[in-house]
Amino acid sequence: MDTHTVEVIIENKPLARDPEGETIHRNLIIKGGYKQVTNVRAGKLLRMTVQADSAETARQIVKKLCDDLRIYNPAAHVCQVRLVG
Amino acid sequence: MDTHTVEVIIENKPLARDPEGETIHRNLIIKGGYKQVTNVRAGKLLRMTVQADSAETARQIVKKLCDDLRIYNPAAHVCQVRLVG
Repeated sequence: MDTHTVEVIIENKPLARDPEGETIHRNLIIKGGYKQVTNVRAGKLLRMTVQADSAETARQIVKKLCDDLRIYNPAAHVCQVRLVG
Repeated sequence: MDTHTVEVIIENKPLARDPEGETIHRNLIIKGGYKQVTNVRAGKLLRMTVQADSAETARQIVKKLCDDLRIYNPAAHVCQVRLVG
């Protein structure tokens, strides 16, 4: 058993609006003068430490857990699961 | 000018407690039977689209913006800025 780090990123579906990201973009970044930034999307990150035989097993455990435990709402969000390092 | 994607991750400092991550870990993941998961840290993700000459310039613009606009609280949080792709 090794220790692996897996990141979960939950954000609104690409075609859905993202009022949080829009507000940060318009009222903070554009007003602050950073016009090079053309879009902002906000999301949630969960970094999990997982005991598993391999990195790929760790990733699959986390993917299953996100679906099983309804960590996100599949009607509204997309959920990415990534290995770190 | 090319289009680059930069991710900003804001989380509590490593030595600070993270009540949100602890609650997700204890009351959702452990209760759900996923004992392989030994730790969870929660954070905020901002994915920014940036116009810049190079990927490294895009990263530096975003790093500067996060400090200038106080997108995070340096006393409480750590802020990572990463290039995507």
